Amino acid sequence: MPSISKKGIQMPESPIRKLVPYAEIAYKQGKTVYHLNIGQPDIKTPEVALEAVTAHDLKIISYTRSEGSEKYRTKIANYYSKHNIHVKHDDIIVTTGGSEALLFAFGSIMDIDDEVIIPEPFYANYNGFSTASGVKIVPVISKIEDNFALPPIEEFEKLITPKTKAILICNPGNPTGYLYSKEEIKKLAAIVKKHDLFLIADEVYREFAYDGIEHYSILQEEGINDNTIVIDSVSKRYSMCGARIGCLVSRNKELIKTVLKFAQARLSPPTLAQIASEAALDTPQSYFDEVKEEYVKRRNTLIEGLQKIEGVKVAKPKGAFYCIVELPIKNSDHFAQWLLESFDVDGETIMVAPAAGFYSTPGVGLNQIRIAYVLNEESLLKAIHILEEALKVYQY
Amino acid sequence: MPSISKKGIQMPESPIRKLVPYAEIAYKQGKTVYHLNIGQPDIKTPEVALEAVTAHDLKIISYTRSEGSEKYRTKIANYYSKHNIHVKHDDIIVTTGGSEALLFAFGSIMDIDDEVIIPEPFYANYNGFSTASGVKIVPVISKIEDNFALPPIEEFEKLITPKTKAILICNPGNPTGYLYSKEEIKKLAAIVKKHDLFLIADEVYREFAYDGIEHYSILQEEGINDNTIVIDSVSKRYSMCGARIGCLVSRNKELIKTVLKFAQARLSPPTLAQIASEAALDTPQSYFDEVKEEYVKRRNTLIEGLQKIEGVKVAKPKGAFYCIVELPIKNSDHFAQWLLESFDVDGETIMVAPAAGFYSTPGVGLNQIRIAYVLNEESLLKAIHILEEALKVYQY
Ligand SMILES: Cc1ncc(COP(=O)(O)O)c(C=O)c1O
Ligand SMILES: Cc1ncc(COP(=O)(O)O)c(C=O)c1O
Repeated sequence: MPSISKKGIQMPESPIRKLVPYAEIAYKQGKTVYHLNIGQPDIKTPEVALEAVTAHDLKIISYTRSEGSEKYRTKIANYYSKHNIHVKHDDIIVTTGGSEALLFAFGSIMDIDDEVIIPEPFYANYNGFSTASGVKIVPVISKIEDNFALPPIEEFEKLITPKTKAILICNPGNPTGYLYSKEEIKKLAAIVKKHDLFLIADEVYREFAYDGIEHYSILQEEGINDNTIVIDSVSKRYSMCGARIGCLVSRNKELIKTVLKFAQARLSPPTLAQIASEAALDTPQSYFDEVKEEYVKRRNTLIEGLQKIEGVKVAKPKGAFYCIVELPIKNSDHFAQWLLESFDVDGETIMVAPAAGFYSTPGVGLNQIRIAYVLNEESLLKAIHILEEALKVYQY
Repeated sequence: MPSISKKGIQMPESPIRKLVPYAEIAYKQGKTVYHLNIGQPDIKTPEVALEAVTAHDLKIISYTRSEGSEKYRTKIANYYSKHNIHVKHDDIIVTTGGSEALLFAFGSIMDIDDEVIIPEPFYANYNGFSTASGVKIVPVISKIEDNFALPPIEEFEKLITPKTKAILICNPGNPTGYLYSKEEIKKLAAIVKKHDLFLIADEVYREFAYDGIEHYSILQEEGINDNTIVIDSVSKRYSMCGARIGCLVSRNKELIKTVLKFAQARLSPPTLAQIASEAALDTPQSYFDEVKEEYVKRRNTLIEGLQKIEGVKVAKPKGAFYCIVELPIKNSDHFAQWLLESFDVDGETIMVAPAAGFYSTPGVGLNQIRIAYVLNEESLLKAIHILEEALKVYQY
């Protein structure tokens, strides 16, 4: 029998996906499960996007240019300029989700065994992309006590080796909800410039910045044009995760030329989804205002509720729609399974993401979970109540 | 300035894409260009697929399961059983085009510097996927004199090393149009079994088999269930290349489990395109009959026309919609550029794909081009005439 590759064996299973069999048990038991575990918002996709799809008059669903059509990329550049980010259409490569943009970035700047420094906890699939690319993630720990702010820059400096090719941040952060300040971005700018590294910022949650704080993109920072790579996506912005459209943005011409070669090999990003995504750029501001208001309400409800529970610690998120919650338990993997399999309040329970999957340092985050506030307030209140009751009886 | 990876530098540029600047010159000169260079058919996408998109009633374009919905995969399994291929829905992972299926297959079975043997000439993007995966393509040459039939099995045997993990064939072949016989598949089955290798068959052109010959899939061959991996795609079958839906099929459970991890990391294949692709499975047989008839007519016109040109050699294709043509010239890269830049018949010229990009042995295929017969007969006749006239005056 032929054998699987080492890489294939090392590929991590999704930390969320691992729980699915337990969710199935809960369903079989007839339980209602509140999903706090996934980043699939319940927010409606903008009408303009949905209607552009219904109204399509294609006779042939053909390939588009590998880098996305010039028209769509020009519209994306316009979108950025409204956010004080000044790029041209040829600084942009349209990708199949932010996921593919990350893969292309890794492939274009790192070879086997090269290293990328990432503040942890981080988006779990960075592990998958690094394994697939044969590169190594070097974590720098950020702490719940500091709200998951940028670790001291000396901590990064200590980790830089000749194999270090990049620093990757997620801003605002999944799973932390942390929004980096201008000052923090400036510190990162200085260090990547000093060491000739790339600075990759995953800004897919850009528009989800709360409390009147403005998101500061690495592309707004001057003097590091050759270092910066932004990962973006329509998935969360327009609640159209299934479109699978994102983009990679950089003013580094050599980099864009290289990314384009990866894009050419896979021919083209999805055509129908590009129609939807191009139309989505005409979404009225009122849509975002409403969505933001909704998320702020949810966040406030969630954080207030959690803070009232004895022994629970939570960092108040300033962006995105996740938070990391520390619980008075030993092992959140077990707790998450137990919630599904062995617990309910009047036939209802919750599904949460154990946080260990968001850390790459072994043993860290075992007493933490990630909660995504992608449910309405009523459901969130019920979910908080279930968590509170569960912690009263959970004995492990 | 931070530097590009070695892998990024090594990524090949698409052999077709390299010609684009010359095509732009031709357009600027006001020339009409017949595109014989790309695999984007002019055939209409089936109505059922287009209408399913228009009729969508999604409120949220959300992620689907990473492996594709069970419903869609079950329908794909039904499609296969009509083609005497018996697989279950959980032998199938839905991918973002055949392209992604190839990447997942490479990643799941090969580590850095591992080797895959491929009869050349082969689909040029195999080079891109192997570079991206850090693996090595070992070519085994197939010859125009033999119509690009399977090279003697001893030629494969000679190339097998401890690093060899797979043999990859494309059936029917792009760029050769060759359709492997049952006997040839049996020979490959024996060798992969003997050496514990995977046998990957890119069968994206399965339905384009002509002259009454039936396509014989590696999945129909008994006794090699753990060895076989099929790459498939809706792109050409339903002329919906821009959907970006394909799949990977294997009865090897370990392999499927591994591929699923790669699929999970990138979350999901495109949702709208899955709606179109699922509907496309209801395309009436009459559609395929008409399309096949059309391609056979085009092929006959093309081959007859080419055979009449002095000094031109062509292998008559039995499948797909490409053929390799040998010309009385020294360098088809130069010839292809010259056709665009410096030649025309009454303001019209042709764009062809130089064949060197389909070989990985340096220096081979320099006097060959690939022609895709994705244009109607009238255009093909004009294109042949232009080629004939061009060869009369081309002096290099
Ligand atoms: C931080 C972050 N980056 C990237 C992605 C990838 O999203 P997509 O590929 O849908 O654009 C996600 C999805 O959850 C995410 O949370
Ligand atoms: C032989 C072969 N395999 C795979 C592909 C990839 O096609 P897609 O990713 O559109 O399914 C192509 C496209 O031209 C092809 O010719």
